[in-house]
Amino acid sequence: MKKIGMLTSGGDCQALNAAMRGVAKALYSKIDDVVIYGFENGYKGLVNGEYRKLKPKDFSGILTVGGTILGTSRLPFKTLSEPGGKETVEKMKKTYSELKLDCLIVLGGNGTHKTANLLSKEGLNVISLPKTIDNDIWGTDMTFGFQSAVDIVTNVFDCIHTTAASHGRVFIVEVMGHKVGWLTLHSGLAGGADIILIPEIPFSTDKLIKTINKREEEGKSFTILAVAEGAKAKKSDKSFEEYCKKNPSNYETVTYSLASFLQEKTKKEVRVTVPGHMQRGGIPCSYDRVLSTSLGATAAELIINKQYGNMVGLVNGRPFPVPLSEVAGKLKEVDPESALVRSSKAMGISFGD
Amino acid sequence: MKKIGMLTSGGDCQALNAAMRGVAKALYSKIDDVVIYGFENGYKGLVNGEYRKLKPKDFSGILTVGGTILGTSRLPFKTLSEPGGKETVEKMKKTYSELKLDCLIVLGGNGTHKTANLLSKEGLNVISLPKTIDNDIWGTDMTFGFQSAVDIVTNVFDCIHTTAASHGRVFIVEVMGHKVGWLTLHSGLAGGADIILIPEIPFSTDKLIKTINKREEEGKSFTILAVAEGAKAKKSDKSFEEYCKKNPSNYETVTYSLASFLQEKTKKEVRVTVPGHMQRGGIPCSYDRVLSTSLGATAAELIINKQYGNMVGLVNGRPFPVPLSEVAGKLKEVDPESALVRSSKAMGISFGD
Amino acid sequence: MKKIGMLTSGGDCQALNAAMRGVAKALYSKIDDVVIYGFENGYKGLVNGEYRKLKPKDFSGILTVGGTILGTSRLPFKTLSEPGGKETVEKMKKTYSELKLDCLIVLGGNGTHKTANLLSKEGLNVISLPKTIDNDIWGTDMTFGFQSAVDIVTNVFDCIHTTAASHGRVFIVEVMGHKVGWLTLHSGLAGGADIILIPEIPFSTDKLIKTINKREEEGKSFTILAVAEGAKAKKSDKSFEEYCKKNPSNYETVTYSLASFLQEKTKKEVRVTVPGHMQRGGIPCSYDRVLSTSLGATAAELIINKQYGNMVGLVNGRPFPVPLSEVAGKLKEVDPESALVRSSKAMGISFGD
Amino acid sequence: MKKIGMLTSGGDCQALNAAMRGVAKALYSKIDDVVIYGFENGYKGLVNGEYRKLKPKDFSGILTVGGTILGTSRLPFKTLSEPGGKETVEKMKKTYSELKLDCLIVLGGNGTHKTANLLSKEGLNVISLPKTIDNDIWGTDMTFGFQSAVDIVTNVFDCIHTTAASHGRVFIVEVMGHKVGWLTLHSGLAGGADIILIPEIPFSTDKLIKTINKREEEGKSFTILAVAEGAKAKKSDKSFEEYCKKNPSNYETVTYSLASFLQEKTKKEVRVTVPGHMQRGGIPCSYDRVLSTSLGATAAELIINKQYGNMVGLVNGRPFPVPLSEVAGKLKEVDPESALVRSSKAMGISFGD
Repeated sequence: MKKIGMLTSGGDCQALNAAMRGVAKALYSKIDDVVIYGFENGYKGLVNGEYRKLKPKDFSGILTVGGTILGTSRLPFKTLSEPGGKETVEKMKKTYSELKLDCLIVLGGNGTHKTANLLSKEGLNVISLPKTIDNDIWGTDMTFGFQSAVDIVTNVFDCIHTTAASHGRVFIVEVMGHKVGWLTLHSGLAGGADIILIPEIPFSTDKLIKTINKREEEGKSFTILAVAEGAKAKKSDKSFEEYCKKNPSNYETVTYSLASFLQEKTKKEVRVTVPGHMQRGGIPCSYDRVLSTSLGATAAELIINKQYGNMVGLVNGRPFPVPLSEVAGKLKEVDPESALVRSSKAMGISFGD
Repeated sequence: MKKIGMLTSGGDCQALNAAMRGVAKALYSKIDDVVIYGFENGYKGLVNGEYRKLKPKDFSGILTVGGTILGTSRLPFKTLSEPGGKETVEKMKKTYSELKLDCLIVLGGNGTHKTANLLSKEGLNVISLPKTIDNDIWGTDMTFGFQSAVDIVTNVFDCIHTTAASHGRVFIVEVMGHKVGWLTLHSGLAGGADIILIPEIPFSTDKLIKTINKREEEGKSFTILAVAEGAKAKKSDKSFEEYCKKNPSNYETVTYSLASFLQEKTKKEVRVTVPGHMQRGGIPCSYDRVLSTSLGATAAELIINKQYGNMVGLVNGRPFPVPLSEVAGKLKEVDPESALVRSSKAMGISFGD
Repeated sequence: MKKIGMLTSGGDCQALNAAMRGVAKALYSKIDDVVIYGFENGYKGLVNGEYRKLKPKDFSGILTVGGTILGTSRLPFKTLSEPGGKETVEKMKKTYSELKLDCLIVLGGNGTHKTANLLSKEGLNVISLPKTIDNDIWGTDMTFGFQSAVDIVTNVFDCIHTTAASHGRVFIVEVMGHKVGWLTLHSGLAGGADIILIPEIPFSTDKLIKTINKREEEGKSFTILAVAEGAKAKKSDKSFEEYCKKNPSNYETVTYSLASFLQEKTKKEVRVTVPGHMQRGGIPCSYDRVLSTSLGATAAELIINKQYGNMVGLVNGRPFPVPLSEVAGKLKEVDPESALVRSSKAMGISFGD
Repeated sequence: MKKIGMLTSGGDCQALNAAMRGVAKALYSKIDDVVIYGFENGYKGLVNGEYRKLKPKDFSGILTVGGTILGTSRLPFKTLSEPGGKETVEKMKKTYSELKLDCLIVLGGNGTHKTANLLSKEGLNVISLPKTIDNDIWGTDMTFGFQSAVDIVTNVFDCIHTTAASHGRVFIVEVMGHKVGWLTLHSGLAGGADIILIPEIPFSTDKLIKTINKREEEGKSFTILAVAEGAKAKKSDKSFEEYCKKNPSNYETVTYSLASFLQEKTKKEVRVTVPGHMQRGGIPCSYDRVLSTSLGATAAELIINKQYGNMVGLVNGRPFPVPLSEVAGKLKEVDPESALVRSSKAMGISFGD
């Protein structure tokens, strides 16, 4: 007999339910007597002992359902040294031991993995699954949620493209990603963006203006920019810095400032699209369903084999256990020298650098 | 033998090409000897004599293609009394007569129809087709482009919904429509929005706050607002008016101001999605393809029967000629007392009034 | 206080849940004390007294869910004179009166409406809603489910189109519709089919072969046929009749026989696609969501106003009560002389007649 | 200066144009003076010297376009020893040398790669790209076209699912794949199929009947089967063998025979969906656009570095040259013991074995 706890933490994304279904169906089919507790709203539920016993039918029909049947919340803390950190951990350990859990499965992103690693170090049996539309988790080629988000943003570019071609304008699509540019890079490439701006490669507005003007000269009256939320200008870009000082914006990202700056400099109309939270939502794409199911079923195998303390990553195309201690605290960024960035540049796409 | 001129004017939308294909294929199949000239970039092409002779194969394979093969531009003017108005009209008449056109087909929205009516009064044979995602053209039950845009915005709501349900937030989706609320109303209803704000029904922020709080009390932790670009607060809403004065925004619509106001008042995170120009783009939906093809084929019949001076509208579900003089200068608004608004209210949707 | 019974009957389709949600939300918001009973699996549930009391939250979140939360089944009978007919009706009346229902809401197609009318004549208060992908219900411009199915089949044509253009082949898409051709006509038109075969217009294989060969001569190496399940050859088409005799098929429709016949006669490869039940499934399109919600909310108004004995149809674009006695027993067919068929022919589409 | 020939061969699929665009844009941006010749309809064009000089704008706007701008055809032959083999090769070599090509780029599947390898051995500089919805090319983790097809078939399952749940039926979806089961496996897993039948794992109808009946007992009234075109019964399955003898079918795959057999044995209605060629068509998904662009850009690098005689595969997630001699003549099948099959079985999915 096995008792398993399960929770989803951090921002939600597509295929969370599919992944939990993968874990559960594999457990039910392989272990005669298994009980799964679902903690509500992420680690909060573990802290406060808020959970419900899940049944096989709770996992039925959720393969295609967005969001998470368990609810989620941001993390209460990331290190033991934060105020209240120790007490919170003790509460989590208490719930874990009172329920006599054999293992805790957590689905989440980078923050989630820090806590997962901490709990593992504290002696709990933890296995994790990498979910995020950002694809920024160390130790896995791919996170689930990412490809679904790429699909959504690519569709935004497709729609913009047909209308862009009819008018002579500059279009900016603000893509989610405060720290990393994976989503912007893949969707920009798939969507035929002309300029891709990501946090890993600071841009120079001079370069952007030149690209837009050069396209104009070549008879291409429109330019489409894929701009990550975390995109930022080079420190040497004094002209844009000054513009921002003169025209302060209370919008949290660079998008609208960049839009009005480019409009002033290029004399072309600049229009902005902000897909926002739609990027996290909707039905998971087929790729994410296969990925999350496969990682989930592998997590069940790890539980049976007592290979605790691991995240199930996709390594060279196959599900593989990666120690939580290696995953936690790292960020998988886009390498400016990677094959994909080089390919993109070879396609004539500007990164503004 | 017939010589036909064709142009698309105003903002582009889905199914423009499908409609032109409808006109052309029907003309080619019904008239032995027909020549179609395509004017470039709307009325500009007619003014400046910029056109190309189109061939049957130009209309092949464009049923599903967004944008317009002719290009489009905003109108040069709307009345004869504008500076340069008379000269511009004379140029258009000259091009028309030099090409010895039998008829000019124009595809466009409200502005386009003003000019079309003017040219008709000046003696040109004009037939028009109602295109716009706004559905605000008088004399037709439906414009093409509208349903495709509803599909796109509804999909935005669907995506937002699954993520909204996982977090306790307020989401605002800004929907195109500066003057009318058709697109916001239909997509909001189809997308399950909780609050719909349209230009025709000014809102009170008090009501919005109450709705959000009441939902919270009923255990619904999230609220989704469909907000038309042209939505505006009631004049009596002094609290919001003052807030806007204190916190000036250079964003052109009420959206971000409303977002930060509601965030302050409800203490809930408010997130904004701006689909923007993606609403005009992409592949036309099946409904718009049938509608635009059917209206286009009917326009060909009108040409053959010399029933000039008409827009082909959808009247009680059937293509029907509507005099340009009745169409021009009017705006088809959402009636706050209409069956659809009443149905929406019966569904528990708030309009903030 | 009102007690309402609700059931879905016949083949399922998209937007059934959306329609029931429309009825229920409007009832809950307008009547202080309303109880809704959901009968399971169509009239069967009414006959056998199998029902459950529904709550507001049962109608929450089902706007976008395909299928029906109540289940459905084919009708037990259509007339009182069928064996067991009277007894079955008595059982339905008994359930109705034992529950002290004020009204029974039925959602269904043509068969469903026959029974609904019969129950109405027997003294029950009945209101109905027109659902079917076939769009063949008399008294309404449009049924819900239809436009969603058109979207699905149109997408099939879109996919076929790109591959057809790469190879020189004939493609047949078998579209649902044993008795009427609405779905085939609309999706064929939207999907750019070259030949449309519907039950209302018997075809001649000679004409089909000519069309395919003529296209070949014009340099169009492929031909796409939209063929309704109920399409049939003219009686005068002896050549095809004989072929079918010689090559008997146990496939229920003409599709595969037609495919092999055309392959033999045109010497071109003929490939078949059978979307089948996918046409009834999936998420309802935005059009159907607005339509079904609006009809549903209107049904609630009729209940409140005690306007029983009606179907809520869409008449000239607006929800409107239509007496069940006028609806029952009729079939809304495609008129071969209608504007849409004429437009299609004007587009160069062959109906094989 | 470089002169490059390009052709697409075999069945078409999604992202062929995207891949060619990738090659061309990278070549144009990296080599000052490059000429690209496009051969028409596959190797045929190379044999007969039918080609056209392509320009940068030919590759513009085709990222999202299905099919191939060059046309395609099945291969003329696969080995030199076939009748006419030598002469055909000589013609190809002649065209190649007359045009003074530096390299020939071929996009195709298994057959295409045999010929590519042969031409490479004959001394031509050849580089290939792996396209097919079957994903059965040796030496690459993934072929482009595959993921787009998975998306399409998964959507079929999604639609079937909602209708299946409303009726108590068995549904068979016939998925492309005569020799391998990748597409059936991935889409079946993503679409929540209950039974997956692939060529690599022969099935026993006894097992299928048991699975269907067991589901019935568990209260699941419907069963969905994903059946590859090349699925076949075990030789030991005498009961089905006899049935097929008694009820001969001229349908080329096992699908309809299996359907009627299961209907007879389980007394449940069995319905068939045949997506057919729609699986090869439509707009490439975002994954395939990134993959094909990236492989295409890498092919351009290989040309520049004169690394001829290679296919550009995806190896451990990165574009990588794989010798044509290693690729040709091999088939990448689904390993019945692979992690994905094991995961699927762990999910409770039956393979009928």
